[in-house]
Amino acid sequence: MKFEVTILGSSSATPIFNRNPTAQVLNINEKLYLIDCAEGTQQQMLRFDIKGSRIDYIFISHLHGDHYLGLVGLLSSMHLNGRKKALQLFCPEPLKEIIELQLKYSETSLCYEINYVFTNDKAPQLILDNQDITVETIPLDHRIPTTGFLFKQKKRLRKLIKERIEELDIPVPFYTAIKRGKDWEAPDGTVYSNASLTIDPEEPKSYAYCSDTIYNPKYFNQITGVSLLYHEATFLNDMLDRANQTHHTTALQAGEVATITGAERLIIGHFSARYKTLNELLDEARSKFENTDLAVEGKTFILSE
Amino acid sequence: MKFEVTILGSSSATPIFNRNPTAQVLNINEKLYLIDCAEGTQQQMLRFDIKGSRIDYIFISHLHGDHYLGLVGLLSSMHLNGRKKALQLFCPEPLKEIIELQLKYSETSLCYEINYVFTNDKAPQLILDNQDITVETIPLDHRIPTTGFLFKQKKRLRKLIKERIEELDIPVPFYTAIKRGKDWEAPDGTVYSNASLTIDPEEPKSYAYCSDTIYNPKYFNQITGVSLLYHEATFLNDMLDRANQTHHTTALQAGEVATITGAERLIIGHFSARYKTLNELLDEARSKFENTDLAVEGKTFILSE
Repeated sequence: MKFEVTILGSSSATPIFNRNPTAQVLNINEKLYLIDCAEGTQQQMLRFDIKGSRIDYIFISHLHGDHYLGLVGLLSSMHLNGRKKALQLFCPEPLKEIIELQLKYSETSLCYEINYVFTNDKAPQLILDNQDITVETIPLDHRIPTTGFLFKQKKRLRKLIKERIEELDIPVPFYTAIKRGKDWEAPDGTVYSNASLTIDPEEPKSYAYCSDTIYNPKYFNQITGVSLLYHEATFLNDMLDRANQTHHTTALQAGEVATITGAERLIIGHFSARYKTLNELLDEARSKFENTDLAVEGKTFILSE
Repeated sequence: MKFEVTILGSSSATPIFNRNPTAQVLNINEKLYLIDCAEGTQQQMLRFDIKGSRIDYIFISHLHGDHYLGLVGLLSSMHLNGRKKALQLFCPEPLKEIIELQLKYSETSLCYEINYVFTNDKAPQLILDNQDITVETIPLDHRIPTTGFLFKQKKRLRKLIKERIEELDIPVPFYTAIKRGKDWEAPDGTVYSNASLTIDPEEPKSYAYCSDTIYNPKYFNQITGVSLLYHEATFLNDMLDRANQTHHTTALQAGEVATITGAERLIIGHFSARYKTLNELLDEARSKFENTDLAVEGKTFILSE
C-alpha cells in the first residue's frame, strides 16, 4: 500500500530563499492528507501537480501564520473549482472562527461542507480512524497550543499465495476468510493450513509529524519506533538559547530525538530564515542520527510503494 | 520624479499557470505603495527584490481572498524582521477585525503600529495627501463593497535653468521663491523675468487602479484623462453574461473604458483561470484602445523616471 510524504514547504516563519513555509502532503493508498497549509501552499500544489480535489483531510498543527495562512485561499479555490465532497479539518478550535469571519466578509458560502475535528494539546487524541490508517495528535510544547500528528497504517490482511490458490481452485468468496488467517477445507475434506496459503503482509508503517516544539521528552514515548519521523530543526545548536526561548528545536536535538525514540528514518525541516544553505543543519542532525534527510520542497519520501 | 507600477500578480480568484492573484507595487519618488496583497505576495516580492521594509502604505480594494489573503503573512514578516515604522493601511473596516483575530490566536503583538484608514464604496474619499501625491478611492461596482484607488502626483515646482542661474550668480536661498514663479531682482536693480529663469515642470502623472468591477459608467468621470489606467478584464467578451453575473468586466469593455475616459495608456489584468494564454484578451482590448498592455508579473510600467 502506497505511503509517501511530499514536502511542499520547509521554511519557518517567513518565506525566503525560495523556501516556502510549512506544508506537506501524504499519499496513503491514493488518499491525500494535507498537513499544515502555509501561505503559498496552493501555488506549491500547482507546481508539484497535486490536485486539491483529491485532498479530503487537512491537519493544522497550530495557529502561527506560517502553518495555516494558505488555508482560506485553498478552501476558496476548492469552492471555486466546484468541490462537492465534504472536507475533514483537524485543527485548534479558533481556526473555525477565523475561517468563518473571512468567508462572511467575502460573502462566500462554500459549496461543500467542512467537518471540523478540534485538537488540543492536553493529551493525545485519536482523531481519525479510517480503513487505511489511524491518526493521533501528538501534544507538543510550543509557545501556543500545538499538536503534531502520528499517522499509523493499519495492519493489513495476510497475502494470498496466488499460485497455490489457483492450484487448489479455491472459490473467490473464501478469499477474505483465508486472508484473515483461516485454513481451507477442500470439498474432499483435505485441510490446507493457512501458513501454506498465505504470507505475512507488509509491516504497517508509521509517520510522526513534529513541528513546532521545544525539545521535550514528553512526546518521545508516543512516537517510539516510527518508520519516519519529521522533526523541526529550526536552528543549529549554537543557537540553543534562542531555540529554547522561542520553543523550537536545534538540528542536533532533532537527531537526538530520532535516536532516543528509535526512529527508522528522520527528516528535518522548518529551517530558520537565517540559513541560506542547509548542509550544516543536515550534518549536525546526522552527527546524532545518520539516516537523516532535509525536507526539501518537492521531494517525496517513500515509506511503502 | 519616479512614478512606476510593478505587477506582482494578475490572476483572478485562484493562482494558476504560474499567475499569482492580484498585487501591485507603486514606486513614487522612491516611496513604495502596495495595492492589494493576494496570497503569495511576499513570495513575489522576494522574487522581484522588493523590500517589505520600504513599504509604508498598503491599499486593499475589497475583501475577496484573491486581493488580501497575503496580508497577514506580510504583516507578520514585517514584524519578524523587526519593523519599527508605523504602517498605513487603507481598507474596508472589517479587515481590522480579521487581522486582529489572527494576531490574537497566534499570540502576536506587532512591534510596529498599523494606522487604519477605512474605505467605503459610497463616494470617493481623499484618503492620503503627502508631499508627493494624493490618493482617492474610486467606488466600484462589485459583489461586495469595493474601491479602486486614484493616485495623483502633485504639481511640482518650476525647474530652474541651471546655466542661467549660475550665469547670474543667484544665491541658493532665492531658489525656492524662483521655482514658485517669482522674478529675480539682481543687486544692480535689474529684473529678470521668471520665464527667463525657469521652465515648466513635468506634467503631473496619475494612475487609476480599477479592480474588481462590472462595467459601470459611475466612476468614469473620476478617472478621466489618467496617464495610466489599470482595469480588470477578467473575461473575453463572449463571456459577457458571466462577467455581468459575477460583476466583472470583459477585455473589450476595459478597452472601452480607456477610450471613453481618455486614458493615455491601459493595462489589463485579473485574468480568469480559464485563459491559459492571454493574447486574445490583449487583442480584444486593443480593438477598442490600441495603447494597451497585459499586467504581466514582474513587468514595470513607467509613468515618469
